[in-house]
Amino acid sequence: MAYKDEKLHEEKVFKDPVHRYVHVRDRVIWDLVGTPEFQRLRRVRQLGTSYLTFHGAEHSRFNHSLGVYEIVRRIIENFENRPYWNHEERLLCLTAALLHDLGHGPFSHSFEKVFKLDHEDYTRAIILGDTKVNAILRKVEESFPQKVADVINKTYENKLVVSLISSQIDADRMDYLQRDAYFTGVSYGHFDMERILRVMRPMEDQVVVKESGMHAVEDYIMSRYQMYWQVYFHPVTRSAEVILTKILHRAKELYENDYTFFLEPYHFTSFFKGEADLEAYLKLDEAVTLYYFQIWREEEDPILSDLCDRFVNRHLFKYVEFNPNLHMSEWMELHQLFQKAGIDPEYYLVVDSSSDLPYDFYRPGEDGERLPIHLLQPNNELKELSRKSEIVEAISGKKRTDHKLYFPKDLIEGLSNRSKTKKRIMEILYG
Amino acid sequence: MAYKDEKLHEEKVFKDPVHRYVHVRDRVIWDLVGTPEFQRLRRVRQLGTSYLTFHGAEHSRFNHSLGVYEIVRRIIENFENRPYWNHEERLLCLTAALLHDLGHGPFSHSFEKVFKLDHEDYTRAIILGDTKVNAILRKVEESFPQKVADVINKTYENKLVVSLISSQIDADRMDYLQRDAYFTGVSYGHFDMERILRVMRPMEDQVVVKESGMHAVEDYIMSRYQMYWQVYFHPVTRSAEVILTKILHRAKELYENDYTFFLEPYHFTSFFKGEADLEAYLKLDEAVTLYYFQIWREEEDPILSDLCDRFVNRHLFKYVEFNPNLHMSEWMELHQLFQKAGIDPEYYLVVDSSSDLPYDFYRPGEDGERLPIHLLQPNNELKELSRKSEIVEAISGKKRTDHKLYFPKDLIEGLSNRSKTKKRIMEILYG
Amino acid sequence: MAYKDEKLHEEKVFKDPVHRYVHVRDRVIWDLVGTPEFQRLRRVRQLGTSYLTFHGAEHSRFNHSLGVYEIVRRIIENFENRPYWNHEERLLCLTAALLHDLGHGPFSHSFEKVFKLDHEDYTRAIILGDTKVNAILRKVEESFPQKVADVINKTYENKLVVSLISSQIDADRMDYLQRDAYFTGVSYGHFDMERILRVMRPMEDQVVVKESGMHAVEDYIMSRYQMYWQVYFHPVTRSAEVILTKILHRAKELYENDYTFFLEPYHFTSFFKGEADLEAYLKLDEAVTLYYFQIWREEEDPILSDLCDRFVNRHLFKYVEFNPNLHMSEWMELHQLFQKAGIDPEYYLVVDSSSDLPYDFYRPGEDGERLPIHLLQPNNELKELSRKSEIVEAISGKKRTDHKLYFPKDLIEGLSNRSKTKKRIMEILYG
Amino acid sequence: MAYKDEKLHEEKVFKDPVHRYVHVRDRVIWDLVGTPEFQRLRRVRQLGTSYLTFHGAEHSRFNHSLGVYEIVRRIIENFENRPYWNHEERLLCLTAALLHDLGHGPFSHSFEKVFKLDHEDYTRAIILGDTKVNAILRKVEESFPQKVADVINKTYENKLVVSLISSQIDADRMDYLQRDAYFTGVSYGHFDMERILRVMRPMEDQVVVKESGMHAVEDYIMSRYQMYWQVYFHPVTRSAEVILTKILHRAKELYENDYTFFLEPYHFTSFFKGEADLEAYLKLDEAVTLYYFQIWREEEDPILSDLCDRFVNRHLFKYVEFNPNLHMSEWMELHQLFQKAGIDPEYYLVVDSSSDLPYDFYRPGEDGERLPIHLLQPNNELKELSRKSEIVEAISGKKRTDHKLYFPKDLIEGLSNRSKTKKRIMEILYG
Repeated sequence: MAYKDEKLHEEKVFKDPVHRYVHVRDRVIWDLVGTPEFQRLRRVRQLGTSYLTFHGAEHSRFNHSLGVYEIVRRIIENFENRPYWNHEERLLCLTAALLHDLGHGPFSHSFEKVFKLDHEDYTRAIILGDTKVNAILRKVEESFPQKVADVINKTYENKLVVSLISSQIDADRMDYLQRDAYFTGVSYGHFDMERILRVMRPMEDQVVVKESGMHAVEDYIMSRYQMYWQVYFHPVTRSAEVILTKILHRAKELYENDYTFFLEPYHFTSFFKGEADLEAYLKLDEAVTLYYFQIWREEEDPILSDLCDRFVNRHLFKYVEFNPNLHMSEWMELHQLFQKAGIDPEYYLVVDSSSDLPYDFYRPGEDGERLPIHLLQPNNELKELSRKSEIVEAISGKKRTDHKLYFPKDLIEGLSNRSKTKKRIMEILYG
Repeated sequence: MAYKDEKLHEEKVFKDPVHRYVHVRDRVIWDLVGTPEFQRLRRVRQLGTSYLTFHGAEHSRFNHSLGVYEIVRRIIENFENRPYWNHEERLLCLTAALLHDLGHGPFSHSFEKVFKLDHEDYTRAIILGDTKVNAILRKVEESFPQKVADVINKTYENKLVVSLISSQIDADRMDYLQRDAYFTGVSYGHFDMERILRVMRPMEDQVVVKESGMHAVEDYIMSRYQMYWQVYFHPVTRSAEVILTKILHRAKELYENDYTFFLEPYHFTSFFKGEADLEAYLKLDEAVTLYYFQIWREEEDPILSDLCDRFVNRHLFKYVEFNPNLHMSEWMELHQLFQKAGIDPEYYLVVDSSSDLPYDFYRPGEDGERLPIHLLQPNNELKELSRKSEIVEAISGKKRTDHKLYFPKDLIEGLSNRSKTKKRIMEILYG
Repeated sequence: MAYKDEKLHEEKVFKDPVHRYVHVRDRVIWDLVGTPEFQRLRRVRQLGTSYLTFHGAEHSRFNHSLGVYEIVRRIIENFENRPYWNHEERLLCLTAALLHDLGHGPFSHSFEKVFKLDHEDYTRAIILGDTKVNAILRKVEESFPQKVADVINKTYENKLVVSLISSQIDADRMDYLQRDAYFTGVSYGHFDMERILRVMRPMEDQVVVKESGMHAVEDYIMSRYQMYWQVYFHPVTRSAEVILTKILHRAKELYENDYTFFLEPYHFTSFFKGEADLEAYLKLDEAVTLYYFQIWREEEDPILSDLCDRFVNRHLFKYVEFNPNLHMSEWMELHQLFQKAGIDPEYYLVVDSSSDLPYDFYRPGEDGERLPIHLLQPNNELKELSRKSEIVEAISGKKRTDHKLYFPKDLIEGLSNRSKTKKRIMEILYG
Repeated sequence: MAYKDEKLHEEKVFKDPVHRYVHVRDRVIWDLVGTPEFQRLRRVRQLGTSYLTFHGAEHSRFNHSLGVYEIVRRIIENFENRPYWNHEERLLCLTAALLHDLGHGPFSHSFEKVFKLDHEDYTRAIILGDTKVNAILRKVEESFPQKVADVINKTYENKLVVSLISSQIDADRMDYLQRDAYFTGVSYGHFDMERILRVMRPMEDQVVVKESGMHAVEDYIMSRYQMYWQVYFHPVTRSAEVILTKILHRAKELYENDYTFFLEPYHFTSFFKGEADLEAYLKLDEAVTLYYFQIWREEEDPILSDLCDRFVNRHLFKYVEFNPNLHMSEWMELHQLFQKAGIDPEYYLVVDSSSDLPYDFYRPGEDGERLPIHLLQPNNELKELSRKSEIVEAISGKKRTDHKLYFPKDLIEGLSNRSKTKKRIMEILYG
């Protein structure tokens, strides 16, 4: 029997708190899960620094990747024998679902920003490069790695397949909303996925949803909205993220200035130089990162050591709302006051902004543009969701942005009480 | 106001997936949570290697410690104004609950075995030594650190206080059963804690349970039984534990034989020498441990590098039931066959045994002896649980033991098919 | 000890699937639950005919009343020792919460429409009249029954007390959303009540919510929106309601026309005459109503017997969307076609409309006007919810209305296929 | 297409709180659900009088019947293409599952006892008699009704089919344990059904369970044990049952003695005479029964009226443990004391016993004997559960019995305090 058609002797399952069980029948999927590249996802947390806000959020991307696979498996089980659905695409869908986050590194948000990387490039590199994953995919078919990469890259020609893992209501989002809600323990993030799966239908170039399931979809969109503002953009998480970013910046700067580290940070050097290859990338997981943060607490450089201490011991920055229309003069003054107080504003006075677009019907030309959700009406015509749902229409296209200013309140408070600098800083910050 | 009586301006909460919210009012508790020693528990997984079996089990001891605190908080809230309860012990109970696991290190089971340590000694050392935790406790009262240590050590004179965190139905067990069930996703581990808390009553030297709550207690004991055999003693977890133990053994052996590591394992050296002090201990968390395992994969020593590779990439040993009455001759033969095949039996042929006593009414003189559970009858007399509950009586005192033999099946299978050694090994193992 | 201060020797609890336990300490509450008038609520379903759509929705108003009591109990436990809160109002709040639905009859929606009754009048009558409930309330204080009635009637002078059980985020709504979601099994209706309770604060004339809890409140409002459209206004439930209404109409009409019933419907006669007193009202529960529907299936009148058969055996009407701007001529034609086909349009062609206002900040002069929700800002000022929440603002004041036309499709289909009447009816209905 | 093979155009679902959705594809199943005989199950509560103890337990047998159908559907979906499984039996299994409780009447336990009926006879009668259900079954195949009756009657030749709905781990039990736990809200009754379904395998004459699922089965058996003692045999429920039984006894006795009822109890007369036919039986649901109880509260007979009042207003009997070895003389004395006090002991002094056998491996010759559970071992041999599971062995065959004495404490307390009779009664009852 061809490798691509091989079934396990007995179905295997993973016990999963969110989907109860993740079911695997295909030899290919089983083999992929066993690769070092996939196992590495166990060492990368799904929500980065969120565990410092929600102590339950310690789950890994391994967790989530299996979940996305399982959702896609259930969706297409339901697609068999329906028009537009090509059974031949089944294994491709399952594989792309399983591997879609393969290139994520530790705390990717900050890493990518500081080192100008894109985890999607690494996902592709792992799939197409000299890896165990690639070897397995090639056993399926010589062109299979490329197909998987194309699906994840959204360039695969059959857009129906693409839409399963990247649209405004794809398996990726459905898994992470539920999973992150489960592990953080918040009460948002629940929606009737079973119903949504039941009403999903394959169409020519996308998955659509029968109109009768519209309310379940509305509920999903509201969940997403709440998760963004309650969990993903939580200011304490962002404070940790700010510090993490500044640690990486500082270490890079020190390296560039020939600072002598107590221990050569050789896992990082290729990143500092901007020439990280796949091998270096794959070695860098959260344990390694945290190891360096731990030992950097004892570095001589006071900024690096302080920031690492803050991160490791969760001694984070405080924040105030930041008005982006603040007079430049006031902002400049704050900067100068920090400098005067001996607190380097480049590392200790940080504006961070978050924004989310809960649902959009069309964002032509935008990066990361995703297909709108279409409802399949009883007359077999499609209608874009926000034209039927008042709730969705109400929030559609409304980008909400939130700006916060992060700083070490403890350091400011530690200034002498007679200091005018302290007084003025507090005045500007707290009014 | 005395520090010990200080309340936070507004109650603080931690969102907790198991207890919904963990509530903190006392300044002392809040300050303790903020110490580096307590934050360190975020870097130690509650279930050690279980995440390699149950992918959801990635939660930390930080999680669990807050949970035990919360349960004790709820129990004693209900004790106020009851006979035998001394309100003055309240803060001591809360503190001991919060800190009871403070000395746990990474993968403590294996660590303690290999390096002959006891996490309880470290808990005491952190509480009594030169730490932030100690500084806070001393602010409460000079003798407070010793009291907390005594409660955790079960030597505190008021046994009622001790029984809250160590008895056969204490806050520790009630938290971990529910928490581990939640994160692994198994359906065991559920019992009606709210009911148990409602029927707990303080007595002279222990917490007892009103007879009307007996069935809820039975359910708790059955949960415990199931969790032990389904989760804690899962053979795949034990396989990972076996490998982990062997890694530490090997590294120690190499160190003792003056092997030159590519990178000096200086976080480990004091452990190898048997002279680890508190400072060294506190620096050793899971990130650090996993960092070394990562880099040791590239060590020259083939055993260390192979074992680390197995652990990191979850390429574990397989197992068969092991009959402890196996003829010595057969066991010797197996040993020799492994040697012959070039597979060092000291590291690659391991017997591991697990055993559990689901409930015992009395184990005089035994290590870790715990008080039996007493029911408070309507006539105010106490009766030991197994005398009222048939189910508990049925399993009471029945120690169940399970022996398994772990080995690298892949290496055996990799031997030449014509090899007699291979054939004979397979014969002994699989009959 | 005064009756109003009497506590039960031991706290009593009711096992409740929604709130886990309902706790009772006050003798007054315990005694009220035991009255025949309160026990009667066990014989009135909370959701009327919804069980014909959602088979789990068989729960009674007894259930819900205990739930509202429990929520108020938790809210005010949290109010103790806060400004604006008067501990003396505690028992009044608990009692009003428990009794607020006391006057509900079987299938009240239809009953009240047909017989021009108002269950609120009956609630008052039970509280103030010659009942066991009244006797208990008078034992508290001579003026206590009137106070309880005033709170339920929203005329009580302390509006803070009133707002606990009737505002846009009162204990009544919080209970029924969760309870109805639980029993129907839908995934809507969940929100973080524990958080909302934690952030509720008493103010001069209303309960307000701390701004930090805004998202939990948004979630509650979305739950409400979804429950209305997914559960309460479900077209199949409304179909059953339409039939029920028509049964009552027909029975009344027959009675007024001196029709001789096989069994004198003496439980109904005072209603038919429009002179139902409290005693008659209290005897009429769902069992009695369904008993008559059962026996009326065998009445000679074909309409009464057919409608009862439909209700009892769940042989409901079908429906189409109804355009309220339909040309009068078309509607007239449909009417005439039904008559021609021998299907009395008065009973078999029914328009039913539902509408809901998910949240309104101000509806001056309207019936049932409810206070908007106010957020308590860090600066202690109040701000109306929709001014802070984009989501709420988006749906605020937007009344959605849905019109459907109900009819017995089976009877139409039963007409001869050659009948022009049938063809034309189907044409108008289905286009 | 043959009727038996007809599929619905689109799958229909029922929203179910326990199984999330109940899925129907077969026309036959859909048609059966729509029959008056099946709809009647909506008017019979699953747990009889338990709602008077657990207010959530108001769910009907309609609920449960759909649940059993759904579980069988999932089991056999998993059986397709396995040895021993005959796809031709599929519809028979589903139908028997759906209809297995069809003959249950209101409060069947008491009814059957008083009127010497057996609901299983009525199930058969409905399936084989002149009913809508029978008409549908005959459309499948002339012999189909008999086959369905045989399966339910356990006489069907293919014992594998029988074991799906009656064995010690059948779909019936798996549904009711979970459902009753859900609606009462107790924390027992949970077990990992999904896992059990996954490890069920068809064998020649029974469904067996793979050994790897043993712990899930243990958990199910413990759930069952707890549900029996915590819910099904709850003394308050039994008190209501005692009163109900006595009401029926009294009404029968009055009827036999030519008592003139205010309203002829014509729904009951054929039962009183012992000649109830199917038509009479089908008309008697809980609404009708409760209707009579309501009106009998105003009957002249003081016993009937008092008992009905107690039932309707939940003014139940109290109880004490009853020692079945009580000296006859003491029992006789109690009897006489009641008579002396004017409290008819036949109706007001009742011993009720409950007993349960949690699991038995073999009960030859016993009524209702059920097959033991067999584990399928890796070597394909079967082993009876209690030989592998220590827990199950421990409780196997242990019948626990509980005797209680029920009486109207209020009436005793109402006797004059100087009465010696009162004093002596209390002495005997409470010692």
